[in-house]
Amino acid sequence: MNEEISQLVERLNEAENEDQKTVFEQAIEELESTELALLLESLPLHQRLERWQQVPDEDRVDVLVAMRAEPRQTIIESFEESELQSLLSGLHAEDLIELAETLPESVIDTALGNMDASQRKHYQLSAQYDDERIGRYVDHELLILPRTARVRQAMRLIRKNLPEYTDCIYLIQRNGAFVGTVLVHKLYAADPLTPLVELCIDDPVTVSADSYLTDAAEKMEHSGLTALPVIDVNQLLLGRITLRLALEITREEYESQLMATAGMDEDEDLFAPVIRSSKRRATWLGINLLTAFLASWSIGLFEGTLQQIVALAVLMPIVASMGGIAGSQTLTLIIRGIALGQISKGNFKPLLIKEVSVGILNGLLWALVIGAIAGIWFGSLSIGSVIAAAIVVNIIIAAFAGVVIPLVLDTLDIDPALSGSVILTTVTDVVGFVAFLGLGTVFLL
Amino acid sequence: MNEEISQLVERLNEAENEDQKTVFEQAIEELESTELALLLESLPLHQRLERWQQVPDEDRVDVLVAMRAEPRQTIIESFEESELQSLLSGLHAEDLIELAETLPESVIDTALGNMDASQRKHYQLSAQYDDERIGRYVDHELLILPRTARVRQAMRLIRKNLPEYTDCIYLIQRNGAFVGTVLVHKLYAADPLTPLVELCIDDPVTVSADSYLTDAAEKMEHSGLTALPVIDVNQLLLGRITLRLALEITREEYESQLMATAGMDEDEDLFAPVIRSSKRRATWLGINLLTAFLASWSIGLFEGTLQQIVALAVLMPIVASMGGIAGSQTLTLIIRGIALGQISKGNFKPLLIKEVSVGILNGLLWALVIGAIAGIWFGSLSIGSVIAAAIVVNIIIAAFAGVVIPLVLDTLDIDPALSGSVILTTVTDVVGFVAFLGLGTVFLL
Repeated sequence: MNEEISQLVERLNEAENEDQKTVFEQAIEELESTELALLLESLPLHQRLERWQQVPDEDRVDVLVAMRAEPRQTIIESFEESELQSLLSGLHAEDLIELAETLPESVIDTALGNMDASQRKHYQLSAQYDDERIGRYVDHELLILPRTARVRQAMRLIRKNLPEYTDCIYLIQRNGAFVGTVLVHKLYAADPLTPLVELCIDDPVTVSADSYLTDAAEKMEHSGLTALPVIDVNQLLLGRITLRLALEITREEYESQLMATAGMDEDEDLFAPVIRSSKRRATWLGINLLTAFLASWSIGLFEGTLQQIVALAVLMPIVASMGGIAGSQTLTLIIRGIALGQISKGNFKPLLIKEVSVGILNGLLWALVIGAIAGIWFGSLSIGSVIAAAIVVNIIIAAFAGVVIPLVLDTLDIDPALSGSVILTTVTDVVGFVAFLGLGTVFLL
Repeated sequence: MNEEISQLVERLNEAENEDQKTVFEQAIEELESTELALLLESLPLHQRLERWQQVPDEDRVDVLVAMRAEPRQTIIESFEESELQSLLSGLHAEDLIELAETLPESVIDTALGNMDASQRKHYQLSAQYDDERIGRYVDHELLILPRTARVRQAMRLIRKNLPEYTDCIYLIQRNGAFVGTVLVHKLYAADPLTPLVELCIDDPVTVSADSYLTDAAEKMEHSGLTALPVIDVNQLLLGRITLRLALEITREEYESQLMATAGMDEDEDLFAPVIRSSKRRATWLGINLLTAFLASWSIGLFEGTLQQIVALAVLMPIVASMGGIAGSQTLTLIIRGIALGQISKGNFKPLLIKEVSVGILNGLLWALVIGAIAGIWFGSLSIGSVIAAAIVVNIIIAAFAGVVIPLVLDTLDIDPALSGSVILTTVTDVVGFVAFLGLGTVFLL
């Protein structure tokens, strides 16, 4: 957590009307656009819209681009048509790509119409790739020269303008195909008349435009460079990605995983309108309700038993809960392993054996503890024994399910971070209730 | 997920004995040390130790440093004393810092004894900072010149050796105090005799050595540079951090948050020895057991009611579960907000109002649905009404708890990602059971 931002958030949120205006003015001076975006996201809707008015025209596009999609939407929705048009004139291709999902089609068309030809071409090339592919997010601030160029020309280019994170110059053929990479710092010791091709590094790292975002980010990170060229299937140099983009991709990936565990996505607005937010979350509650009814139905199978031994009703949540917790530990470990690319069919078996072994040990340990407490509580050795047995069964099944469920989901291309815990809980609830009440029916009636 | 690594993991884990050796040999050639580390982590213990033997001597330190603490421990524990000593000779200060937590004191002392004086000094300076402060993780591959130096000297330095991610040279006073930053690319257009101080950038960004890791990472990210100087309280230039380190910090931060939700930490080994793993997870199960018993005890208060109306026992998990899910949605949103620095006392109130409003809406919606289903299932309007009322109460309380619990925990300096969900579940379980069975006792008996 950035102390500077969180303090500003605090001051801003605590200030009233006019004071808030002053605090925000100071923030505008001190912060860069990604931080201003965070700050605006932290404000309730009406204050967010008021403060937005203070954002200087020249920063507005950057701030909007830096915001998460949903809070950004709340601002864009407040625009007059004319306000929107003026905001979008002179837009860069990569900004329009970022904003596209929150803009009406007609507005995108107008923005494209106002763009100069080269930006429009960049946009069209990028827009071919969906939002999981790196080709969509390349920037175009790269230094490019024809393959015939010499050091002299490169030096001229650099002196004119060196974009952030530039450590290389890229050479292309006349048709735009990528030829090679020259490290900028190699230029300085070289003779001005040397052809650049002679300085090209061996085996230059390039990123394919249809790489997944995280693959591209890892390649970027491991390259030791601060930017990499992105090329399409025809070897055309599409643009570049930077180490900073790799950082942003990594953060968004983890953030969306974190949010997925509660059935949300990373674009969720802290201050989303109540109706919108309720609707979105209702789906997740509905899915979970199905699993809850399944658990409930499995209890219903034992109504007769419960009527006779009410202690079972009192204790049954313990069996379900311990299974759920043990299972979610395994599940979380496996989900991380899948995200890191560490788990495959190859190590599935030893992993399953290890997790089930841990389940057996912990199952036995906690079965003893819970059995003893329950036995004393209800003054019945047999109740203690029944719950102990049910705990062992449920924790072992939980470990098994914690390994198998995410791997099956992953094979089916379903995000295990999103659906894994719902399915796991269904398993541990149903198994827990059935094992406990079933054993109770057999041994206690 | 990096496709290249996950494919290698798969091939490696599926290969038998000799084949595995060949696959790993290929991996050593193609991958960098962080990827090899991931690969070793993905192997069961005995295979991991076998493959480790293949890692070339010169890469061993890098691979160990890149591994998570726990899997690294499994390798270090397998070393003979002499093997360990030879590994540690010629170690850099920053590698020893990384390895320190997994090494016995005596080994650290020997390694320090073998270090040359400047590295030992680096180590001692860094070791003053605990593992949450950036001072501990600086590297020393930075270009430093005295404040009196001229462009000529800088050029000589650069031609000799330009470390990765170097975009600046730092000037210091004779006592080592930081003076200023010169952008490397400004050197080339300058006269060789120009004093470097004249090229210093205005207001150079520096990072204080006792900044928290994530604060330092954000500063790094927002600077637009690829490395930043780190200085201590006496303005002494301690070392530098790079954009790549910022990326690693960001990843570890999120990874530890993800693992914390299941009571684990990010160093957890996929193939930890069963006993060790069981012990560590047992604690978390024990903590959760306390909360499960609390829920169970709250049910026990209504034994009499349950005996007379067994339908309540069948339905009660639904009330608890819906509250738990609704609460965890709010909790996850707030935990992310805290991590981003977006939540403070200032926006606590509007946030609470918004979340409780969402809770009221969703509570009413699902109360209707669940009430209707339960009413039909048990053919009783009053059972339907009682569960509907309990659902509304529990979902609203869950929203309230989802906002308040993480904020209170954060104020008390307890990680809300770790403890938040246990406490929340306790609240939603107890409130759910008491509301449902309590209302049942009043209206159904």
